[in-house]
Amino acid sequence: MAGYVSEAVIRRLPGYYRHLKELESEGVMQISSQGMGERMKLTASQIRQDINCFGGFGRQGYGYNVTELREHIGRILGIDRMHRMIIMGAGNIGRAVALSDSFPANGFQVIALFDTDPQKFGSTIGSSPVKDLESIEAFLAVQSVDIAVLAVPTATAQAVANRLWDNGIRAIWNFAPVDLKHPRETTVVNVHLEEGLEILSFKMKHKNNA
Amino acid sequence: MAGYVSEAVIRRLPGYYRHLKELESEGVMQISSQGMGERMKLTASQIRQDINCFGGFGRQGYGYNVTELREHIGRILGIDRMHRMIIMGAGNIGRAVALSDSFPANGFQVIALFDTDPQKFGSTIGSSPVKDLESIEAFLAVQSVDIAVLAVPTATAQAVANRLWDNGIRAIWNFAPVDLKHPRETTVVNVHLEEGLEILSFKMKHKNNA
Repeated sequence: MAGYVSEAVIRRLPGYYRHLKELESEGVMQISSQGMGERMKLTASQIRQDINCFGGFGRQGYGYNVTELREHIGRILGIDRMHRMIIMGAGNIGRAVALSDSFPANGFQVIALFDTDPQKFGSTIGSSPVKDLESIEAFLAVQSVDIAVLAVPTATAQAVANRLWDNGIRAIWNFAPVDLKHPRETTVVNVHLEEGLEILSFKMKHKNNA
Repeated sequence: MAGYVSEAVIRRLPGYYRHLKELESEGVMQISSQGMGERMKLTASQIRQDINCFGGFGRQGYGYNVTELREHIGRILGIDRMHRMIIMGAGNIGRAVALSDSFPANGFQVIALFDTDPQKFGSTIGSSPVKDLESIEAFLAVQSVDIAVLAVPTATAQAVANRLWDNGIRAIWNFAPVDLKHPRETTVVNVHLEEGLEILSFKMKHKNNA
């Protein structure tokens, strides 16, 4: 993918990937920009523009080869390889992430959870062990980990994140409702769940005076 | 709030609300657009522009009254009142939402969960009962519900959503990785969790060639 890609296009990439996977599972082998646009509620010209951004694909009058485009977007997203994840916090959110089928199906594999509750140490959630948070440094010294899921209480989120960065973690998927201060070379993507609910509330309230 | 507000501004509203709540809890009573900008990683002029959008507030040389602005944004978001929620699907995600403290703290109250697994009927999660999905129509006939959380398997998401709309539900918070077809008068906000993880993967991969 050459040059600058806007945040809006980046945010649409996973949607392309998902729709192309659905098309594959429906046995669809090629699709026009028009057809793709109808699925994604975008115009055909917007689709062509996006896909040009991804490096150009498709031929005039033929459209896109579904599998080729899906694989291409998978490579752009970096999900053509496995990611090893740890989950900080074995509470409700950490548990839900650990038990999800959809993350391993896309190559995101949970290898361990960490918590501060001694009652949880040694148990497993799904097929992943729950370990003592105090052992995180020793664990990271010998294990290769790509992503840490941060699902700890708000009050401790920054402190736990600092320990992760200090021990080589470069990517955090953050569920704590807090904007983490983080080193420049690291990547943080936030899932602020309550914000989604607040936006739903906003949209309900303003539906009829839009 | 008068006139058109862009999607980008709407998406920032919950962040304003969260930061103002934090400021209140720190005992801060007023804050300049500069100070607010530093917290939110926006420029002072962007902050002033956003807040003007919300209906104008603050005085030259004084800044913003933290509590007034927080309450004002809460009203815009529609979270100055209670919302009654049901959760469709008592799996990992439904469970995590039902057990969260942060939703009730913001006025989003779970009143029941619905599932298809008879073993779960009659149990409670947090303080909410799990009921038979087949009783949803009877339930909605007598209960007032503002929001349905959709946490059912992808394959059944659209069918369950249709039953909700047919029985008066106007707002869905959708965790199923599918773009729901929905009536014009309804509101859907999607939480496509795997998309967040894919965007994290993208950002990791492209960090050094940005």
